[in-house]
Amino acid sequence: MRTLKLTVAYDGTRFVGWQRQARGPRGARLRRGVEVEGESIQGLLEEALARFEGGPVTVQGAGRTDAGVHALGQVASAEVTCTHDAGAILRGLNSSLPLDVRVVCVEDAPGGFHARFSALSKTYRYVIRNAPVASPFDRAFAWHLSEPLDEDLMRVAAHALVGTHDFAAFQSAGSETSGTVRTITRSELTRQEHVSLWGKPYEAGLLYEISGDGFLRHMVRAIVGTLVEIGRGRRSADSMAALLAGRARSQAGATAPPHGLFLVRVDYD
Amino acid sequence: MRTLKLTVAYDGTRFVGWQRQARGPRGARLRRGVEVEGESIQGLLEEALARFEGGPVTVQGAGRTDAGVHALGQVASAEVTCTHDAGAILRGLNSSLPLDVRVVCVEDAPGGFHARFSALSKTYRYVIRNAPVASPFDRAFAWHLSEPLDEDLMRVAAHALVGTHDFAAFQSAGSETSGTVRTITRSELTRQEHVSLWGKPYEAGLLYEISGDGFLRHMVRAIVGTLVEIGRGRRSADSMAALLAGRARSQAGATAPPHGLFLVRVDYD
Repeated sequence: MRTLKLTVAYDGTRFVGWQRQARGPRGARLRRGVEVEGESIQGLLEEALARFEGGPVTVQGAGRTDAGVHALGQVASAEVTCTHDAGAILRGLNSSLPLDVRVVCVEDAPGGFHARFSALSKTYRYVIRNAPVASPFDRAFAWHLSEPLDEDLMRVAAHALVGTHDFAAFQSAGSETSGTVRTITRSELTRQEHVSLWGKPYEAGLLYEISGDGFLRHMVRAIVGTLVEIGRGRRSADSMAALLAGRARSQAGATAPPHGLFLVRVDYD
Repeated sequence: MRTLKLTVAYDGTRFVGWQRQARGPRGARLRRGVEVEGESIQGLLEEALARFEGGPVTVQGAGRTDAGVHALGQVASAEVTCTHDAGAILRGLNSSLPLDVRVVCVEDAPGGFHARFSALSKTYRYVIRNAPVASPFDRAFAWHLSEPLDEDLMRVAAHALVGTHDFAAFQSAGSETSGTVRTITRSELTRQEHVSLWGKPYEAGLLYEISGDGFLRHMVRAIVGTLVEIGRGRRSADSMAALLAGRARSQAGATAPPHGLFLVRVDYD
């Protein structure tokens, strides 16, 4: 067997998320009240890779991004027997994938490499468009908030997350994960005046980046929701530390919408 | 009467273009072989503004952008009688417009101001994503070309356009404009390694910007198509000057696709 490491970028807008869903009605999701069969990024990659194999392939992703969440550098692993070189696999996958999913790199990995279990660290980015008028160009890629936000307070609160903490307060209800302690190595908020390809000054944005050894379900979005409440003056900056001590999800902020979130990179040994 | 100056940004992807079309079948366009009633940006703005007026309003745009072409700073003018302040009009228009069209500024203009006839200069930008793998995030906002392009040759050719020339060779067939002489004040190609919100190095891009006192139909896209043929080594850099002298459209390059083009700004006295 041969182990492949794939680096994948996707616009998550129209997908049910990374994870392949059970076929049939149980795999469907509701969109404006109508049941739609959901396409997943994992499912598309498995189909594309199966063409090389002439048989089924299982693709494992480092992060199981939710519906609407994007990736710049998702990493996936797969065991294959095909002997094509990496460049041919990359071109072949991209020629059969839709344009909102692109494989940006294919490499041979050491035997036993597993995209999720071998990962040491993941980095997520959350984009907030903070300007009076929204931009028509990033409405699918940023959370638009028109009111002023106190960045200094948000920055202080973000910094309080660095270290090893119990993040139970930032986990979505109904999660199955047993342990809720994670180590965060970076948690930073920066303001960017010209963040877009189109370079308009009115497209001012806040970028929040967080790196750590693991993330609970909806954790980054719950952190961002809490930071925004701090920025709006609805809670104090030191309430972040209290949440880490207190563990109650009901006390943290609302979950920020998925479309501002990007899985940026996954690091390995 | 009161004259308003509106600055408008839009994602042109789903529109028939700036210009309102005749109602009924003649105003429809074909999309994958099926006739669809086309929505125009001008039509949407007129509808939104009519709500303030309680009657029909005509909106004039500075540039009649084609189907699929975007704008960061289109300028439009309209004669109205409503007495709301500019901020209220801006909020009102944005609340009734779809999210892919945003009014970014509303100002009172001197009587007689006309977005097109009063314009002194317009600036367009064309975005080329020049990288082996396309980005899923700008597939609607950049022309993806995977092969290497000789930027130095393209830059020399772009510069040859500056000055007053007859641009007949860059006008689309069937255009009705009588004069084809225009003055170009800026024509520049730059490479950007990090042009996107997501800042990935693989998203290398070429930005072409051109400013002038007027543009013929499809002129910027024909220029970009010609520049790309020069960058690919399929024609010489000095063929640009020959085209300005020779006037034959058939000798210029193919028209570049609309989705890489942005109307960036319009300048007035």
